[in-house]
Amino acid sequence: MAIELKDLTKSEDNYSQWYNDLVVKAGLAENSAVRGCMVIKPYGYAIWEKMQAALDGMFKATGHQNAYFPLFIPKSFFSREAHHVEGFAKECAVVTHYRLKNDPEGKGVVVDPDAKLEEELIVRPTSETIIWNTYKNWIQSYRDLPILCNQWANVVRWEMRTRLFLRTAEFLWQEGHTAHATREEAIEEAMKMVHVYEDFAQNWMALPVVVGHKSPNERFAGAEDTLTIEALMQDGKALQSGTSHFLGQNFAKAFDVQYVNKEGKQEYVWATSWGVSTRLMGALIMAHSDNNGLVLPPKLAPIQVVLVPIYKGDEQLADMRSRLNRIADELRAKGLSVKVDDRDNVRSGFKFAEYELKGVPVRLAMGPRDVENGTIELARRDTLTKETVPQEGLAERCAALMDEIQKNIFQKALTYRNSMITKVDTWDEFVETLNTKGGFISAHWDGTVETEVAIKDATKATIRCIPLDAEDEDGKCIFSGKPSKRRVLFARSY
Amino acid sequence: MAIELKDLTKSEDNYSQWYNDLVVKAGLAENSAVRGCMVIKPYGYAIWEKMQAALDGMFKATGHQNAYFPLFIPKSFFSREAHHVEGFAKECAVVTHYRLKNDPEGKGVVVDPDAKLEEELIVRPTSETIIWNTYKNWIQSYRDLPILCNQWANVVRWEMRTRLFLRTAEFLWQEGHTAHATREEAIEEAMKMVHVYEDFAQNWMALPVVVGHKSPNERFAGAEDTLTIEALMQDGKALQSGTSHFLGQNFAKAFDVQYVNKEGKQEYVWATSWGVSTRLMGALIMAHSDNNGLVLPPKLAPIQVVLVPIYKGDEQLADMRSRLNRIADELRAKGLSVKVDDRDNVRSGFKFAEYELKGVPVRLAMGPRDVENGTIELARRDTLTKETVPQEGLAERCAALMDEIQKNIFQKALTYRNSMITKVDTWDEFVETLNTKGGFISAHWDGTVETEVAIKDATKATIRCIPLDAEDEDGKCIFSGKPSKRRVLFARSY
Repeated sequence: MAIELKDLTKSEDNYSQWYNDLVVKAGLAENSAVRGCMVIKPYGYAIWEKMQAALDGMFKATGHQNAYFPLFIPKSFFSREAHHVEGFAKECAVVTHYRLKNDPEGKGVVVDPDAKLEEELIVRPTSETIIWNTYKNWIQSYRDLPILCNQWANVVRWEMRTRLFLRTAEFLWQEGHTAHATREEAIEEAMKMVHVYEDFAQNWMALPVVVGHKSPNERFAGAEDTLTIEALMQDGKALQSGTSHFLGQNFAKAFDVQYVNKEGKQEYVWATSWGVSTRLMGALIMAHSDNNGLVLPPKLAPIQVVLVPIYKGDEQLADMRSRLNRIADELRAKGLSVKVDDRDNVRSGFKFAEYELKGVPVRLAMGPRDVENGTIELARRDTLTKETVPQEGLAERCAALMDEIQKNIFQKALTYRNSMITKVDTWDEFVETLNTKGGFISAHWDGTVETEVAIKDATKATIRCIPLDAEDEDGKCIFSGKPSKRRVLFARSY
Repeated sequence: MAIELKDLTKSEDNYSQWYNDLVVKAGLAENSAVRGCMVIKPYGYAIWEKMQAALDGMFKATGHQNAYFPLFIPKSFFSREAHHVEGFAKECAVVTHYRLKNDPEGKGVVVDPDAKLEEELIVRPTSETIIWNTYKNWIQSYRDLPILCNQWANVVRWEMRTRLFLRTAEFLWQEGHTAHATREEAIEEAMKMVHVYEDFAQNWMALPVVVGHKSPNERFAGAEDTLTIEALMQDGKALQSGTSHFLGQNFAKAFDVQYVNKEGKQEYVWATSWGVSTRLMGALIMAHSDNNGLVLPPKLAPIQVVLVPIYKGDEQLADMRSRLNRIADELRAKGLSVKVDDRDNVRSGFKFAEYELKGVPVRLAMGPRDVENGTIELARRDTLTKETVPQEGLAERCAALMDEIQKNIFQKALTYRNSMITKVDTWDEFVETLNTKGGFISAHWDGTVETEVAIKDATKATIRCIPLDAEDEDGKCIFSGKPSKRRVLFARSY
């Protein structure tokens, strides 16, 4: 698992290669032997576990329970909701057989033609259909509602062009699926959950996001409304980071899920679904990292503080080791996640570069002079600054620094993001801004799918969202010149 | 999600139906529309989450890290290790296509014949092959070893006869996969992990287990040695509850994984793998439950204490509710997981039966007289005893009771299990004991696969394990009469 520190591509030279280098060289993930499927390596998975734990706590605090539904979905379930099948049919992994046998020609194993399934099974790309088929049996009366379930699972969408974390054939995610007695309650739930995602993105990932509605053309296949959190990467492209859907009664009707209301009448149930995935890992990496490597917000960093001894000879190392372990214990007592790197086969300079690459928020290095002076060298990953500080009060200092770094990373991303929202009022400005500056473009749109598609065809920019806080403002669509009531956010995106 | 409390089959009438009724009626799991795949319902999943959290902590405390490997395995990988493919080929879900399309005849969607994979993909039944293909790139020198990874994942084995939790086509599990420089270190790891499982089974699940080696015929496909924890269910059948395998260099050779040792020579890497699955849920249910429902050990109970008001009229309910919530907060302050059931649409008797069915360790019921007297009724699920106790000191009492109940459930299972280990020395006794008493039979075996298979064919009993603590004892094989050095444990099993 040796790490190659050299040859990290610079982001200004090739942003895409810089990203890929980071993911691979920091030990987050790598491509596998299976097309489009990644291996999430221990350091990457440790970050994902922290994301999961935080999100899971937020889901439970808002009344949700976890459950688990089958990996496979009968093909016929897919066809029940017309938009849904339209949206997912082209990227499905299909199980057709359930047995291998020895190759009669002696070459390993072959699929046994006698073991063909009567009905093909789809590896879930999302679980609305199998879940609503299940909910049908769980719901009779209004007393059975709401159902507030979440599932942590793997899903498969057969993407043709894949990129580690951002777009992979298999990915890990959570999908919430809720059932409600009224339209209003379902709409409220979808809104509540997009705000949970906003809270998580901003307060855990240090990632500023715009919350808004998707335009009709960008909605989830089967949704009546899709809410989204949209983040901006350092190359000026947007990244959809989480979505929450109001599904109306579409799936209830497709799977005939009705309940008896308080007045004794049958009604179709109202639905939401909402999800975030390992794509968030891509957002985290691209939003904060620099040419030295990852910059992790302390709340999601598997190692928050690393301690490195600067020493000569075994005796000094042994002395340093016990001093550093003592400090480490003090830091741990403050709830910090700490590593002492006392390896004797790599130089301290190599270690410094490694922990910069891995985005560890604070590095403490102790040399012989520090021992004499009761000091230690403290380096911040976010600012790349170093200072010599007293060992006394170090644990308090580090604990406080975690908050400061978390805030600083967010503030930096927020300042950048805000500088990258450009208001434009003409088509020429729109195209010019897209091509020179990038970022979000706040512009008027006439509200039609035709215009949305035409703009996308012309520029590759899409409507990222109609922000929840968009102000009423009369204007003219930058493309068609037709009247518009508010600005929306366009961007090129991942 | 209404619970049917009536018609719970009695275990003495039909053990298998009793088990299934429990799983379904206690809201743990149910069959799905997909053959052999289950839905794990929120209450069942909450227990699984507690199992996961405890195990995950134990894995991390023993130096392991989590990672994630692909769901799919190229068919050719399977053929690389001969025993492995032999063991799993007959129960594989095979992905052959990656796209659906609209049926040209207008009937929903069909598999697109133009989207056939060049090489079929197997949905992982276990991940040794894909992981060792990955490890090949992670390991160059002895400094890269050991690798101590675990993965929480879903796997698929196309079982023909399925039973909720015990044997399902898809199940959830963890699989540890470790790589070592020496044979000794790998053997030590496999042993360490089976003891972790033993610790978990006994101290969390309150489930006594026998730890031992599998006989050659019962080994994992590709292992040189399989260690197992074997539990006994209340119908006298054994349940293999977790296994830990020493894989030798089999997978390293199959995937050409070599490392340079300290002396600069190339050597093949040594491997282990180890896993437990949602099958543990089946063990938990079958080992402790009774004709009233589940009996959950407090450490794994999603609700440890339930509080139920006995009241007349809304005013009394309101008063009770505030009293019970105050008590609940005191219990929560002691770290207990507590629910106040103040539903006004079901009778308290229904609630009592429901929480018995769900195995909640302690039920507290408060009536008007309790309010007067400062008392509360405390019912234990494990003993089905009730007593009236003072409200004063209730939180301490309940906290202490959790330990007592945990121990009592274990002790009861242990007493039963120990009473069900029968030493026999003749074939007649063996058959007689199997057919009348069941349980584990401690008997001499000549050590050959032929005898093992002959006994299985004659009686359906298998060697569950050669216990680690089996004493040296000269004897004669109950089947062949040939000499034997120690007794092994036979049983019929799940």
